[in-house]
Amino acid sequence: MSDPTKHILLMDGPDRKGLIYHVTGVLYRHNLNIIHNAEYVSPAGHFFMRTEFEGLFDSDALLSELHSAMPDPSHDTENIVDVPDDMTDRHNITFRLNPKRRKKIVVMVTKEHHCLGELLIRYAFDELDADILAVVSNYNLLQPLVSKFGIPFHHVSHEGLSREEHEAAILRTLSIYEPEYLVLAKYMRVLTPAFVNHFPNRIINIHHSFLPAFVGANPYRQAYERGVKIIGATAHFVNNDLDEGPIIAQSVQEVDHRHTATDMATKGKDVEKIVLSQALKLVFSDRVFISGNRAIVL
Amino acid sequence: MSDPTKHILLMDGPDRKGLIYHVTGVLYRHNLNIIHNAEYVSPAGHFFMRTEFEGLFDSDALLSELHSAMPDPSHDTENIVDVPDDMTDRHNITFRLNPKRRKKIVVMVTKEHHCLGELLIRYAFDELDADILAVVSNYNLLQPLVSKFGIPFHHVSHEGLSREEHEAAILRTLSIYEPEYLVLAKYMRVLTPAFVNHFPNRIINIHHSFLPAFVGANPYRQAYERGVKIIGATAHFVNNDLDEGPIIAQSVQEVDHRHTATDMATKGKDVEKIVLSQALKLVFSDRVFISGNRAIVL
Amino acid sequence: MSDPTKHILLMDGPDRKGLIYHVTGVLYRHNLNIIHNAEYVSPAGHFFMRTEFEGLFDSDALLSELHSAMPDPSHDTENIVDVPDDMTDRHNITFRLNPKRRKKIVVMVTKEHHCLGELLIRYAFDELDADILAVVSNYNLLQPLVSKFGIPFHHVSHEGLSREEHEAAILRTLSIYEPEYLVLAKYMRVLTPAFVNHFPNRIINIHHSFLPAFVGANPYRQAYERGVKIIGATAHFVNNDLDEGPIIAQSVQEVDHRHTATDMATKGKDVEKIVLSQALKLVFSDRVFISGNRAIVL
Amino acid sequence: MSDPTKHILLMDGPDRKGLIYHVTGVLYRHNLNIIHNAEYVSPAGHFFMRTEFEGLFDSDALLSELHSAMPDPSHDTENIVDVPDDMTDRHNITFRLNPKRRKKIVVMVTKEHHCLGELLIRYAFDELDADILAVVSNYNLLQPLVSKFGIPFHHVSHEGLSREEHEAAILRTLSIYEPEYLVLAKYMRVLTPAFVNHFPNRIINIHHSFLPAFVGANPYRQAYERGVKIIGATAHFVNNDLDEGPIIAQSVQEVDHRHTATDMATKGKDVEKIVLSQALKLVFSDRVFISGNRAIVL
Repeated sequence: MSDPTKHILLMDGPDRKGLIYHVTGVLYRHNLNIIHNAEYVSPAGHFFMRTEFEGLFDSDALLSELHSAMPDPSHDTENIVDVPDDMTDRHNITFRLNPKRRKKIVVMVTKEHHCLGELLIRYAFDELDADILAVVSNYNLLQPLVSKFGIPFHHVSHEGLSREEHEAAILRTLSIYEPEYLVLAKYMRVLTPAFVNHFPNRIINIHHSFLPAFVGANPYRQAYERGVKIIGATAHFVNNDLDEGPIIAQSVQEVDHRHTATDMATKGKDVEKIVLSQALKLVFSDRVFISGNRAIVL
Repeated sequence: MSDPTKHILLMDGPDRKGLIYHVTGVLYRHNLNIIHNAEYVSPAGHFFMRTEFEGLFDSDALLSELHSAMPDPSHDTENIVDVPDDMTDRHNITFRLNPKRRKKIVVMVTKEHHCLGELLIRYAFDELDADILAVVSNYNLLQPLVSKFGIPFHHVSHEGLSREEHEAAILRTLSIYEPEYLVLAKYMRVLTPAFVNHFPNRIINIHHSFLPAFVGANPYRQAYERGVKIIGATAHFVNNDLDEGPIIAQSVQEVDHRHTATDMATKGKDVEKIVLSQALKLVFSDRVFISGNRAIVL
Repeated sequence: MSDPTKHILLMDGPDRKGLIYHVTGVLYRHNLNIIHNAEYVSPAGHFFMRTEFEGLFDSDALLSELHSAMPDPSHDTENIVDVPDDMTDRHNITFRLNPKRRKKIVVMVTKEHHCLGELLIRYAFDELDADILAVVSNYNLLQPLVSKFGIPFHHVSHEGLSREEHEAAILRTLSIYEPEYLVLAKYMRVLTPAFVNHFPNRIINIHHSFLPAFVGANPYRQAYERGVKIIGATAHFVNNDLDEGPIIAQSVQEVDHRHTATDMATKGKDVEKIVLSQALKLVFSDRVFISGNRAIVL
Repeated sequence: MSDPTKHILLMDGPDRKGLIYHVTGVLYRHNLNIIHNAEYVSPAGHFFMRTEFEGLFDSDALLSELHSAMPDPSHDTENIVDVPDDMTDRHNITFRLNPKRRKKIVVMVTKEHHCLGELLIRYAFDELDADILAVVSNYNLLQPLVSKFGIPFHHVSHEGLSREEHEAAILRTLSIYEPEYLVLAKYMRVLTPAFVNHFPNRIINIHHSFLPAFVGANPYRQAYERGVKIIGATAHFVNNDLDEGPIIAQSVQEVDHRHTATDMATKGKDVEKIVLSQALKLVFSDRVFISGNRAIVL
């Protein structure tokens, strides 16, 4: 029997009539009390639900009963257009009961310290909902900072290596830790699709953003030259393009013509580190689902 | 039979186990498809739910079955501490099915036009989800604006009248229209509790707000003298204090020392009118519930 | 002699040593009191100054003396790299004394009313610092709104016309009014460089903006599909690309996955109209200078 | 002779005609080039100016000439109503030339680490424009964090001491370091006016803020119960009330009914630490002047 604290059930599958009814019915018959429930149905007909509940139960029995209770889709298939790959029962519905609360992560950085410092301080005071197993960098500049917090630091230089060789070296280092998530805390090298495919929807990146967006080198210089009045940052999952993928969180700050490109970068860093931290908090508390190229925060 | 477009069910009552299950079960047995469902349980144990669904049904039968399906609270009453007054069944649970979508409102103003103008333009283009039956003012300054839009304008002067006499005159005017909501779009007189009690949770006010808050006359002057860097506005229900009551929406804008008190007021008005409009949109689409002194937006 | 109220002096030219000193010296010798002074020197070495002052003076004498007082650039030319075209004295320095306070503008629209309605209400209450001489549209949809405010409305349809023919027709209409500024209040057709060149830095546009930016048709749909958490709007001068040119003002609002593309567009419109109005206020009070592709707000 | 890098001149005194002219004249005659100049005249007639310039000069000669060049106020005294106490010449005008760029500060904390951690990381990477001489706390909870960064930590417990005795103990510790500024990075004890008077306009505090403001214990609980939609933070100088004094910087974040009081506090901390850091950056770069109860940021 689980202990009687708060539990979390995540559910994900093609939408059909009665899903909420059948799931809540199983919880009701087990005498479990729903504290918070949030659902979302995508326009493409995919159903997402996150349920917080309390009470005593047997996990295997509950999961088994949940699967059995699912309504037969045969009479109600016209909506199903968005079938993900990771389905786990005959109805293509995935249940996850009490996903592990402390995620295991590796942080990847290059030279900038602002996001890393933020994560280390939060980790030191147990505010991250995750364990930082290690920090990996293509430079050794941030080793002194990491060592203050007693966390392994791996300098995996890219010098003299092809992109594939460098990524292979990183993967060897990561294989020591088997992290559930990679956090790119200003890791400034483009990752190959082959690398990204090792961590589907498990790589989180922070990216400066502007209105309008500036592509190419030195975006803060471009933003300055265009005279933007707002700068921002975007935390997102990485799929096959470093700066693309479902957006988890965004925020902005105002600037004006008195800000130099350097001032904008300084203010931008403040936004970046807070947005990254807030995005990680959402992901690590299992509140984020992915629907196509969108992140749904329940 | 209702037509097969989107329907809304609102539910409100003391929390107990199985509420979601029993309600969604009734909808399932009627072959109705839930499009969107949002619940909230207050810390005091009150349950709120807003359900959007589609399908054909008989309203009386559905409501009757919903009431019958409610679980018996006798075994599960320990949580019930927050019982509102408007309960409608033996379980103290209120259901509202398809609340009328176009609300009937009267707008009250004094001399400032910015919020009124905003509402009139939105109304003229059918963006308000409400019918403005009339505008009532203690001055006649805004009559020309209102007349452009073909809406009755009532000048109910307070001159020479006691507060009670003036409110009695306003109530006589309002009795012509029987509005569901009163919108105080910069109505600058304090309302008595007796007046407010005629419209429980049905008066919406817009109020300038600051960090920190300034009490008393000429708040923009006070904000200027304190050198605030942010000004804002708050849309809220009115209970017994003009500037108190559950907060529906808030927003802010940045200012700096170059802004005079007048500049701050000008920027503040921009915030006020947008926040008021966005709050009305939420209320008139039946997304706002009141829990104690909080407004829950589902 | 001018009357003793507040006056404005605008100055613009290649930077050199002593500019502030010499200008303020002329004002001092005329016994004029500076209330507010703001300068900006661009990285390219261009100097901008906006001075508010009070006192009695003869305009011609003051301007003549200002020109005479300018330091000889011959010893100090190494910085001059950014020479604009509209210089008016031997030192390439432009002075503008008391630019006319009420600008004459024509507003151009297509079908959307939100920005136009905002401008009309502000104009009706004399808050625009400008006279709306006329509204020009390629549709007649907004004629009823404009007529409420007693302003000429010109329907210049583009049907059956080439882009050049249509713009020629618009120019004929504009020639009646000789506006100082064109305000594109959701005018949804691309303007040719030839048209834009008739109004250098005198066309102001409002553009939706996102983090990241979305190019092409239906940006709100694209923003929705990417799951953005922030939407915004940008008011800018138009040069040769409808959506480019110096940025005057920007603002944002938060959204989340529960917002449909339509909801995002609705919230976006609220931002658009306020940003456009605030940008116009800055331009019409002669606070905006253009430096390269940047708008400097003094 | 000073080296030919950027210099800063701060000026502060009763407004009169010709101040900008006379100061810029001295710089011009010394062949110094003004890079950036910002002035402000308070409604009460006090003049503030911050000038950045470059070139070679003798500091004593320059300051002496600046004082000599000031216009005689005898003919122009009607505006002088706001005379501060720290005047340094016969005209009551203060000049400060090249104020020391790295300030010496002591940080005071109680139990919360978020602001302190932020300052330590910035300090470790030389981003603070100040040296943290020591950290003083009435608890020893944050000693391990501080020691990671090699900074002295003083635990000055208040237990068993009167407020005056405790403050005397703190002052003894501070006397070792003679800090120019005290930074209250979530120091949660009220300071007496006697203590504050030791550091006039040299104590900077960070304070949570709300719309509306909540007075008394547990403001996040109050904010939650009122259902606020925005939370914020205010960095300000401390005068005789811990939560009052000129406001340097403010910022906000959005929340909604799904945020518990704890969630609000968590988000509030993110705002607090960024606002405090940004305020310190402004103060330590000598951009902040105090006018009455307002902070002017030039």
